[in-house]
Amino acid sequence: MNLPIRQQIEELEDSKIVDVWRRGFGKPGLIMLGVGEGDLATPKFIADAAYKSLLDGETFYTHKRGIPELRQALAGYHKRHWGVEIADERIAVTSAGMNAMIIIMEIAIDAGDNMVAVSPVWPNIFATAEIMGGDVRMVSLVNEAAHWHLDLDKLFGACDARTKVIYAASPGNPTGWVMPAEQMQAVVEFCRRKNIWFICDEVYGRLIYDRAVAPSVLQFARPDDPVIAVNSFSKTWAMTGWRLGWMVMPKGLAPVVERLLEFNTSGGQPFLQRAAVTAIKDGEPFVAEQLARFRAGRDLVTQRLGGMKRVRVTRTDAAFYLMFQVDGEPDSHKLAIKLVDEARVGMAPGAAFGTGGEGFLRLCFASSTKRLGEAMDRLEPFLN
Amino acid sequence: MNLPIRQQIEELEDSKIVDVWRRGFGKPGLIMLGVGEGDLATPKFIADAAYKSLLDGETFYTHKRGIPELRQALAGYHKRHWGVEIADERIAVTSAGMNAMIIIMEIAIDAGDNMVAVSPVWPNIFATAEIMGGDVRMVSLVNEAAHWHLDLDKLFGACDARTKVIYAASPGNPTGWVMPAEQMQAVVEFCRRKNIWFICDEVYGRLIYDRAVAPSVLQFARPDDPVIAVNSFSKTWAMTGWRLGWMVMPKGLAPVVERLLEFNTSGGQPFLQRAAVTAIKDGEPFVAEQLARFRAGRDLVTQRLGGMKRVRVTRTDAAFYLMFQVDGEPDSHKLAIKLVDEARVGMAPGAAFGTGGEGFLRLCFASSTKRLGEAMDRLEPFLN
Repeated sequence: MNLPIRQQIEELEDSKIVDVWRRGFGKPGLIMLGVGEGDLATPKFIADAAYKSLLDGETFYTHKRGIPELRQALAGYHKRHWGVEIADERIAVTSAGMNAMIIIMEIAIDAGDNMVAVSPVWPNIFATAEIMGGDVRMVSLVNEAAHWHLDLDKLFGACDARTKVIYAASPGNPTGWVMPAEQMQAVVEFCRRKNIWFICDEVYGRLIYDRAVAPSVLQFARPDDPVIAVNSFSKTWAMTGWRLGWMVMPKGLAPVVERLLEFNTSGGQPFLQRAAVTAIKDGEPFVAEQLARFRAGRDLVTQRLGGMKRVRVTRTDAAFYLMFQVDGEPDSHKLAIKLVDEARVGMAPGAAFGTGGEGFLRLCFASSTKRLGEAMDRLEPFLN
Repeated sequence: MNLPIRQQIEELEDSKIVDVWRRGFGKPGLIMLGVGEGDLATPKFIADAAYKSLLDGETFYTHKRGIPELRQALAGYHKRHWGVEIADERIAVTSAGMNAMIIIMEIAIDAGDNMVAVSPVWPNIFATAEIMGGDVRMVSLVNEAAHWHLDLDKLFGACDARTKVIYAASPGNPTGWVMPAEQMQAVVEFCRRKNIWFICDEVYGRLIYDRAVAPSVLQFARPDDPVIAVNSFSKTWAMTGWRLGWMVMPKGLAPVVERLLEFNTSGGQPFLQRAAVTAIKDGEPFVAEQLARFRAGRDLVTQRLGGMKRVRVTRTDAAFYLMFQVDGEPDSHKLAIKLVDEARVGMAPGAAFGTGGEGFLRLCFASSTKRLGEAMDRLEPFLN
């Protein structure tokens, strides 16, 4: 193509997740467990709140950082679940967590700067830095005795004078890894000292099976630290299609973020934000119901896959993914393609998630046990 | 602030439109005519379509370039109104026109590149290039005998080897200027020869009073030209708060744009896109009704302001803004502040729109004649 396109943009690649998804798309009877969303639609009471707001005529431009009622609800949410006090001026509603990420990269990354990211991780994160001309350095989690571990010395050792961002998702996608509180504290202190952004992606913070919530970086950061927590309504309230997220940022950054929201999307939809307020206020029974469902899914696939001869499963205490290895199958992309074609089960290849992911497949268990059981039946002949 | 923020981002300024808006916000009885939206909420039949889709469970991630039904409806829309055949692969739905603009800049602008923009123009456009480290060169329209004119030699003369984008809005905001068909043709040919992007913002293309539609760049561009038409549902269907836009791009660019949509917002809301299909299919009576309303508003403010002694109005044949000068008031920002404070009428200062705008105020007449009449009564003592 002869169009005038920046080299960095020409070099962006399709996610290998999308690649397998495309291959499966439209295949009759395919069970797609390769995408990061559940199989429940958004509950009706949330949809009703959006419709009421539409009928009330809330269809005009609104506050760039989100309607005040939603910012207030989010402050209460952080207080209730993590015991942290967040001033309103530190909250911005975004068009999904992804939109928060690109805005952060616009703030942080000049051409030639770098981001150090804990991998394996959702690959879109790399792309946001690359769009701004930044380099990505991955520091791999290590899988030992079925658990994932981060070596902090390796993380800090990967940083240099051009490092502007350390990124970690906790709980992580695809691993379900939960950053221990002491590590969060240490990274916050390192970033405070070096004046590097610590971006902590807490999208799965409520989806955890061995305690009430995952630790939040906001429990360890001071209001003026270069720390941003990114979050989203997508997973917790089954609202992936709503494209609603938020970020909690340091004191004083709001004017910068407001401008960037204005210049990236001109802000969000007031009537969707009303629904988000309802999700927070009335959504806890649904969150509990979803979590029970995910737990049942996790237990089923862990047990079934764990019983297949060639499979080694990892332990998942958070998020809704199971990572597993298959003996004799080092190439995860090849294996994912084979299984989508022949077993008619779609999963994401670990190689899609950067270093540390190759050799694993990621299965999303946010589905009915019936559907998951059927997927296990189909996989068994291939993985035994 | 000691936070690690890129210099370009530190230097971004609040729009002077927002500045006046903030000053007026919450003032009892203020008539705000300084923002680019009408006073009609989105029609119920459009809201109903969104709600139906929500109840149908269309709340999951969807196609990055938008649901196929919407792309098809948009192709039909371009065919009906401008007689152009647009292949589906050339259409991408975006989170508002603004989101299309930042994605285009991500494609086009490396640090040190420049964009040449026809001004006065909506200032957000400048910011999108600056975020990517680009410079903005403005080429001013000239106002002669109450009409705006573009000197093409000046436009082409402003381009150099680092020019990656020529940007024009037609019909323009704030001027209502409509780029003549011959000029569109000439710019397309220039950009084809030089391999420069021509970004034509056609958001107001249906809001025109002296013919059926404004010329579209798509009538002159070949499918492989570096030409992109940016559009939005905001103005035509009273959907500003919906954040829904689209772009028509050259053949072959779709994979690049899909990736960038993925990395900027991960795509749009399927249920809002259903409503957009309904807007296109069933919205023409509403579009006609709105246009009649805008025309009445335009006629009223043109006549009333034109009758005030110190005022010189320009002629507006498109969009929903009137630009006017006030004798003895060269500083548009100062005048706008005075009028919001003392006359309790909010308008946007021309200086906010780049070169060529100083000395003008922009009044949005997308309002009831009753409200506009009241605004005129308030302004009269100050402008007579």
